[in-house]
Amino acid sequence: MSQFSPMAAQFHALVCRLQDSICSSLEAEDTARFHEDVWTRPGGGGGKTRVIENGDTFEKGGVNTSAVFGTLKGQEIEMFSKMIEAQGLAVPTLSQASFFATGISLVIHPKNPFCPTTHANYRYFELQYPGGELWWFGGGADLTPYYLFEEDAVHFHKEHQHACQASDPGYYSQFKTQCDDYFFIPHRGETRGVGGIFYDHLRQHDKSHYLALAEHCGNAFISAYIPLIQNRKHTPYTASQRDWQEIRRGRYVEFNLIYDKGTLFGLKTGGRIESILMSLPSHVQWRYDYHPAQGSAEAALLERLKNPKEYALS
Amino acid sequence: MSQFSPMAAQFHALVCRLQDSICSSLEAEDTARFHEDVWTRPGGGGGKTRVIENGDTFEKGGVNTSAVFGTLKGQEIEMFSKMIEAQGLAVPTLSQASFFATGISLVIHPKNPFCPTTHANYRYFELQYPGGELWWFGGGADLTPYYLFEEDAVHFHKEHQHACQASDPGYYSQFKTQCDDYFFIPHRGETRGVGGIFYDHLRQHDKSHYLALAEHCGNAFISAYIPLIQNRKHTPYTASQRDWQEIRRGRYVEFNLIYDKGTLFGLKTGGRIESILMSLPSHVQWRYDYHPAQGSAEAALLERLKNPKEYALS
Repeated sequence: MSQFSPMAAQFHALVCRLQDSICSSLEAEDTARFHEDVWTRPGGGGGKTRVIENGDTFEKGGVNTSAVFGTLKGQEIEMFSKMIEAQGLAVPTLSQASFFATGISLVIHPKNPFCPTTHANYRYFELQYPGGELWWFGGGADLTPYYLFEEDAVHFHKEHQHACQASDPGYYSQFKTQCDDYFFIPHRGETRGVGGIFYDHLRQHDKSHYLALAEHCGNAFISAYIPLIQNRKHTPYTASQRDWQEIRRGRYVEFNLIYDKGTLFGLKTGGRIESILMSLPSHVQWRYDYHPAQGSAEAALLERLKNPKEYALS
Repeated sequence: MSQFSPMAAQFHALVCRLQDSICSSLEAEDTARFHEDVWTRPGGGGGKTRVIENGDTFEKGGVNTSAVFGTLKGQEIEMFSKMIEAQGLAVPTLSQASFFATGISLVIHPKNPFCPTTHANYRYFELQYPGGELWWFGGGADLTPYYLFEEDAVHFHKEHQHACQASDPGYYSQFKTQCDDYFFIPHRGETRGVGGIFYDHLRQHDKSHYLALAEHCGNAFISAYIPLIQNRKHTPYTASQRDWQEIRRGRYVEFNLIYDKGTLFGLKTGGRIESILMSLPSHVQWRYDYHPAQGSAEAALLERLKNPKEYALS
């Protein structure tokens, strides 16, 4: 790894610290414990996949880190060329380019339908090629409730807003819009959830600026999400509320398998399948042409997902 | 529709007859009945979606027909250009081209894990553009068991082999290989099931040849599938066998949402979402890194899906 920049190791250290602190905070809300699988990638690097299943609080969740590196080859060269071109940059010669990618990716599916699902991801990528280097940062966190509690959405957004403001006062508003745009399911005409923040391909400032951004936002995840779980995890629910949760999880699966760039990229470039697909919920339902009753809490959620709104003032 | 060839109406009449006979045969095995939704497409045409849910025999199934037509526009032109180019044909000018597409598509998910899931689809497509026309036929049927019964796979294949042989002695062997190739899940290294037949873009013979092929194969579906249901629908099963069925259904979802050309094409061209996604099973599970016990019936199925074999002699 000696050819990579110091940020490679610094960002990897950050995501490992976040993995530890986030897993500890989640375990404090459950009797179940994370199980860790350490894996290595034949071409270079590897990761730590931590999964929690069948807990009293968390039905299924994963908090994964990885740091992978090597030489771009085959269809990877084509995929990265397209990715670079789409950013409006000149595409350098990528055959024999070295890449380094590290990040944390987490998805938590609670058991109680009043507890929201959440996802977060912070990542750093760099390419070294003859005559230059190219790097960018990406990240974000978003909330997917099954029942709409305005105060939960506001709390999640505000915590991330504060985190973003520590880096730049304009970030939150921009990242919030990007999140609504990214987590959109075109064939349903709905957002996946009530959003949060999303950024990608950031490289305008120096690297330490974006390391700090990921650190602020990654730390904010705990204060943004854990209180929602504490408030809702003991709320009684009915079998039909549970059914609704499983039906909505179907939309989560649709988004991740059809549209999520990270999932599809991982599957097509030979990523570790079980680490990528840990994002899928454990129990899911699809019913033909299902519509909740007019005026119901379920219909209110749908209405919101078709019409995203502001949860925090910029 | 006057500008379309007589085959447009003939093939549509065939798929409507098949829809009736197949729905009747399935209903004869269940207490539940198909519910029909008739829909129209704003740009031209429409369809009949028939869905059965929560039956004693069939947990969820759909037998759909459609006949849609209109003028290619926007990204449809690009998608069809690519599709024609991929067939090694010169791409005609498609702006303002008229298209007609009709077919039957069915997916049946039985409740009992010893009853296999099945899918079949027979379709005709034509394009009329200034100076010419282009048409092709496609179709196939395949079986997705949760437990491997050699005799069920052999029966399903042999019935379709006989149907294909009525049109051409070489078809079955070719279509069987194409089915294994098409219903393959690369990220799992498994076929979706034990296969069947699959063909697409056929245009070498005259249209009546392919109409007859679809008729033979479509009729064969009933004799190929219904006996398997009759034999297995009352077999007692355990909760863990049911779990296995739901876990395997997860693979079905992965295939349909990530790789199935028909599903993705339909979602991206504004097809009727509920008719397309009726293919998804009602109850599905994903478990992290799940592997059946060595030597178990579940492991035997997986082994077969990683190593497709011949079920009928050509």
